[in-house]
Amino acid sequence: MSEGEFDLIRRYFSTAGKASRAEVILSIGDDCALTKLQPHQTLAITTDTMVENSHFYPDIAPYDLAYKAVATNLSDLAAMGAEPAWISLALTLPRVDSSWLSEFSRGLFDILDRYNVALIGGDTTQGKLTTVTITAQGILNQDYALRRDQAQVGDFIYVSGTLGDGLAGFHLLRAMQQGEKRALDSDRDFLIRRNFHPQPRVELGLCLARHRLANAAIDLSDGLGGDLGHILARSRVSAEIDLDQLPLSEPLLRLYGREQAELLGIQGGEDYELCFTVSPSRQAELDRHLAQLQVPYRRIGRILPAHSSPEITFIRGGKRLDIEVTGFEHFK
Amino acid sequence: MSEGEFDLIRRYFSTAGKASRAEVILSIGDDCALTKLQPHQTLAITTDTMVENSHFYPDIAPYDLAYKAVATNLSDLAAMGAEPAWISLALTLPRVDSSWLSEFSRGLFDILDRYNVALIGGDTTQGKLTTVTITAQGILNQDYALRRDQAQVGDFIYVSGTLGDGLAGFHLLRAMQQGEKRALDSDRDFLIRRNFHPQPRVELGLCLARHRLANAAIDLSDGLGGDLGHILARSRVSAEIDLDQLPLSEPLLRLYGREQAELLGIQGGEDYELCFTVSPSRQAELDRHLAQLQVPYRRIGRILPAHSSPEITFIRGGKRLDIEVTGFEHFK
Repeated sequence: MSEGEFDLIRRYFSTAGKASRAEVILSIGDDCALTKLQPHQTLAITTDTMVENSHFYPDIAPYDLAYKAVATNLSDLAAMGAEPAWISLALTLPRVDSSWLSEFSRGLFDILDRYNVALIGGDTTQGKLTTVTITAQGILNQDYALRRDQAQVGDFIYVSGTLGDGLAGFHLLRAMQQGEKRALDSDRDFLIRRNFHPQPRVELGLCLARHRLANAAIDLSDGLGGDLGHILARSRVSAEIDLDQLPLSEPLLRLYGREQAELLGIQGGEDYELCFTVSPSRQAELDRHLAQLQVPYRRIGRILPAHSSPEITFIRGGKRLDIEVTGFEHFK
Repeated sequence: MSEGEFDLIRRYFSTAGKASRAEVILSIGDDCALTKLQPHQTLAITTDTMVENSHFYPDIAPYDLAYKAVATNLSDLAAMGAEPAWISLALTLPRVDSSWLSEFSRGLFDILDRYNVALIGGDTTQGKLTTVTITAQGILNQDYALRRDQAQVGDFIYVSGTLGDGLAGFHLLRAMQQGEKRALDSDRDFLIRRNFHPQPRVELGLCLARHRLANAAIDLSDGLGGDLGHILARSRVSAEIDLDQLPLSEPLLRLYGREQAELLGIQGGEDYELCFTVSPSRQAELDRHLAQLQVPYRRIGRILPAHSSPEITFIRGGKRLDIEVTGFEHFK
């Protein structure tokens, strides 16, 4: 197959008729894109890469790959309280495959349009392994962001949605990849979709930032244990998590049982829910705002003074448990 | 070797003591970086990827890889007339190799410091092929950028520096890679260095934009033929290039002879010089400003009315030649 890079870009990543934004002065087609902010606005910038065989299997549906690659980046913007605005796409492909590209661009624009995000540029290169790097930029309309380093002793710790589904979905996918033949029931389908089509908590992040409800926040990409650990390290505090309060989905509980589901919920990655800390004095206000948003959330613990090193204590029925948790890290 | 991703990032990409910028409110370590612009400023954004075996050989010195990956992005900012401000780095590596990472980060910060650019974030992932994607952002201090689509009929066409060296350097590297044993004389060394350590024409781009000297500009990453072609297509004009005026380096002429050197100059990629078009009425002003900058530049042709399709006519000694040129494209 022989097709020029430039034709390829024009055909599948044309932004004609797609989400456009007033801030974008110049989009795809020049050396750079040009954008402009209002004087009161702050820019939030994040980059995430997905590599074949490390982050996804080669047979992943290209629609899902594009969708997830954007979703994980929007999740980082949500965790900062920023409104997603535009992305650059760096796409490395082993070959030009029209139907693959067509499905990839469909997934890409489906999620971009849903969140009113503009594709402003990128780079298409040839390489043996499919790799997707997205740099996403969002806008904060106030001098206040949901940072990791401002958790206060006494804060309540919250998470949105349910935990562990993304990791369970990954395990199910891997088993299928390794040849397991099992009909997909609705529970398995739910968990796999949670892994494939994470819903970035954009509205929640915007609400928390706009009303300055949270002192600290992070998105759960590497698992509660690891990601909450980042808040603790940066804020120089520790935390207590009540396992009885861990929000676990019915499909996860049915398929794995309570104990295994809890472990998935703590160690799991790829949930793309938000974990945030809120002063007890703001709890009523938080409940009021989040009821309006109709976002599921749960109080799962509280922030404690720092120990010698930041750490998480788990309790159940009021009793302290002796378990240790680390998040997912590459190269480990 | 076993080392956590987070330790790795902290150790080799710590920005302590490196270039910092007033616009950067929050840097590495949170879900996003945060930056702020002045009301009159415009943001320029570009992304470039380098993939092992496609853009560089696996044995490339990591210092050179980092340097070049940043330089190519800064070149895009220069071509827009933007001042380089900050970058995000997405780095995919097959393994953690301390000495490799140490050299890579030395090359990275050498060029970042030289141009006062801040590293504000990124993503480190594991994958079989080393891949470097950089998203660079720059600032325009006026509502005017060096676009591709504003070339005017009658404009003179200029290029900075010399052309063809980058491609010649690539050929020399490939010959060495394929086992050619030849001592590196100073000419070969010059050409290889031009490929490894391109100098983005940042000051030139800033000067052209600040004084609104150029109607259109592009950086020469894919070769004069291909890149000038972008200006012609976007501006709906055509061009005439005088081969006698093509700026060719002494090492290129000595090693390849005039005819081959010209071909390298036209078809060559990776020169990272600027090609720009200027109204004849601004020529004196241009000469005055560029003399101050001490940037080498040469007038090589002029913009003509559009033909049926945008195209470049080459002349020598005033006579029209019958040659056709295309730029480098992946997948071709």
